[in-house]
Amino acid sequence: MKRPVITLLTDFGLSDHYVAAMKGIILGICPQAEMVDISHEITPFAITEGAYTLAQAWHCFPKGTVHVAVVDPGVGGTRRAIVAEAGGHRFVAPDNGLLSLALGNQSAVKVREITAVRYFRPAVSRTFHGRDIFAPVAAHLANGLAPGRLGKRVIDFADGGFARPTRTGPSRWSGTILKIDRFGNVITNLDWDTFGEIAGSTSFLLKIGRRTISRFYATYAEAPAGQLFALKGSSGYVEVSLNQSSAAVFLKALPGAAIEIQVRSTG
Amino acid sequence: MKRPVITLLTDFGLSDHYVAAMKGIILGICPQAEMVDISHEITPFAITEGAYTLAQAWHCFPKGTVHVAVVDPGVGGTRRAIVAEAGGHRFVAPDNGLLSLALGNQSAVKVREITAVRYFRPAVSRTFHGRDIFAPVAAHLANGLAPGRLGKRVIDFADGGFARPTRTGPSRWSGTILKIDRFGNVITNLDWDTFGEIAGSTSFLLKIGRRTISRFYATYAEAPAGQLFALKGSSGYVEVSLNQSSAAVFLKALPGAAIEIQVRSTG
Amino acid sequence: MKRPVITLLTDFGLSDHYVAAMKGIILGICPQAEMVDISHEITPFAITEGAYTLAQAWHCFPKGTVHVAVVDPGVGGTRRAIVAEAGGHRFVAPDNGLLSLALGNQSAVKVREITAVRYFRPAVSRTFHGRDIFAPVAAHLANGLAPGRLGKRVIDFADGGFARPTRTGPSRWSGTILKIDRFGNVITNLDWDTFGEIAGSTSFLLKIGRRTISRFYATYAEAPAGQLFALKGSSGYVEVSLNQSSAAVFLKALPGAAIEIQVRSTG
Repeated sequence: MKRPVITLLTDFGLSDHYVAAMKGIILGICPQAEMVDISHEITPFAITEGAYTLAQAWHCFPKGTVHVAVVDPGVGGTRRAIVAEAGGHRFVAPDNGLLSLALGNQSAVKVREITAVRYFRPAVSRTFHGRDIFAPVAAHLANGLAPGRLGKRVIDFADGGFARPTRTGPSRWSGTILKIDRFGNVITNLDWDTFGEIAGSTSFLLKIGRRTISRFYATYAEAPAGQLFALKGSSGYVEVSLNQSSAAVFLKALPGAAIEIQVRSTG
Repeated sequence: MKRPVITLLTDFGLSDHYVAAMKGIILGICPQAEMVDISHEITPFAITEGAYTLAQAWHCFPKGTVHVAVVDPGVGGTRRAIVAEAGGHRFVAPDNGLLSLALGNQSAVKVREITAVRYFRPAVSRTFHGRDIFAPVAAHLANGLAPGRLGKRVIDFADGGFARPTRTGPSRWSGTILKIDRFGNVITNLDWDTFGEIAGSTSFLLKIGRRTISRFYATYAEAPAGQLFALKGSSGYVEVSLNQSSAAVFLKALPGAAIEIQVRSTG
Repeated sequence: MKRPVITLLTDFGLSDHYVAAMKGIILGICPQAEMVDISHEITPFAITEGAYTLAQAWHCFPKGTVHVAVVDPGVGGTRRAIVAEAGGHRFVAPDNGLLSLALGNQSAVKVREITAVRYFRPAVSRTFHGRDIFAPVAAHLANGLAPGRLGKRVIDFADGGFARPTRTGPSRWSGTILKIDRFGNVITNLDWDTFGEIAGSTSFLLKIGRRTISRFYATYAEAPAGQLFALKGSSGYVEVSLNQSSAAVFLKALPGAAIEIQVRSTG
């Protein structure tokens, strides 16, 4: 028998009890759940960073997985709770853009507002919906609950303004930094499908702050020490790296900061 | 079949092998155990913080769960190891107050000193009882071992001096800071049962360091930016917050620091 | 039925999606796997620290466990991927010394180069072999795949230059710092089998930086406050500690730094 898989992504950190409270609630409802942390170290309230991290991880899991994601600056306010179905996976999250990068390239996405209070904890706090709404709903889904039982379809869910670069000239785009990873790699929102032509050429200029990057290498190991370079990250986005050092520290790059790219087509 | 649940709480951090060593030992004794981390990022030796974190999480787990908690500055010294039964859960910990907040409000608490060395690892180190005593004992309990087999009842277990505020005048109490959470919320030991009357009123003065808080909001989202305010946290304690910022940094608040509250009854 | 156990050790940290991606891939191949983190907070690229941490944890797990370890500065370059069998456990890692301390004292170690691409992910990236090679190979091993199916035996695998102290005089050795743990304990590569004679005596001088340690205590609790002392750590190595404080901060000790010991035999 396959055990239902539930992943968790939050900005709750690992020092407090918040994540464990969610897991305890899940195990009370779905004792067979296999729970896997995606990350709980999302910068507090950083929806873009959470959306990127979820988008990188969810498709590595087997079909049928339930992903519960809580980066939720608006908890207790008017934002909706939603459940989404896409690619054979289900997602439970606040409706604030957190799912936008995971759902972005998928067809046949169904999103519902979660309103069926019978699947919540009996007493819902104003401040901790991760424990009181999202965790129990995820556990019921893992138990086989049909998403249609949770609430009505909605089509106006938040789509994440940070998802795509903007064309600003014939060969010029402005983009944004999605995330700095642990190794100091700077992950941009320049997707490989559009910007893959920079591979192996020096016919691009990528500006981050006051620096310009114009070299591309295929692996970290190929780059000479001290050279800033662009790379096709495992993420599918253009990343900027410094071999065995932190490009982000060197560039003073921060998530959410603007970048610019100019590509001279070599075709 | 329900799998036995074991939670772990320590101050071991996540960079070293200490937690994994405990888990390996547990799996060797109880291969079916579902192990859930409560936190391993308790500040080293901070028993109060550990006690608070455990107290917040344990009751979210299903009955029958075994909770093993190790914040143990006295390891290798004379402090006892104890097992407690309360509320259908079992707790394994050093006898230093770490269980006091979890056991505090419960009736019918049974505590025993753990002396049955046959349930320890064959060679017990002087420095790592988490691996050599607490983990194997927890695993045996998860396997169904009766706590009575571990040792004799004791009634003089450490009760945690930090558990309750002290009345210092007709409407005045002195208390303490139990914990700073990841979001910078300052969690006091002012329990909601006693201090709930501050809700919705401005008839209280809560002093932390040189600052006085006199506003109450029901949710983070309601508070204006830059306003320090009191909140009924999901913890059941009065917390002090700054919307989307760190109250603790602003207040320079530290766990264990003294606070003071004056309440003017509005009845 | 015992569930197959897979441990994971990386320098990927816990804020990014990298560890979750590995776990998702593992669950897709081996849904029954019980996955346990050893550590993901190894200092980036610090092979010595990773090797030490793995060596401390692996033997606590039941026989049959698969340990996957990825600290891999050479990813995408020419270093090999290897699978090792020793002591009833299996290990999957890059061939860069990461397994050297785990395998060091074992007889009957079998090591193979992993070349059977059919057990990799269909598309192998140049930058994330943890997800694309090591995780799926570990999952197949947990499913019962014979290591011999993965590739041919090799005997020239990396043995870790940091593994042993060097004799520099009749009673003098130079060694190295393997790791600083969370408590600030300085863990040396002075193994207890060779250096155990320092216990209970003051007939040794251990130099770290400009400080000399000459006191030994059996437990943290015995040492007077403010006294630097040597201890037989639970690791089996000589450690240097400061009771309830950080010896590493006091000594400005860093992993990889050289140390020196002089022992006057008391025999």
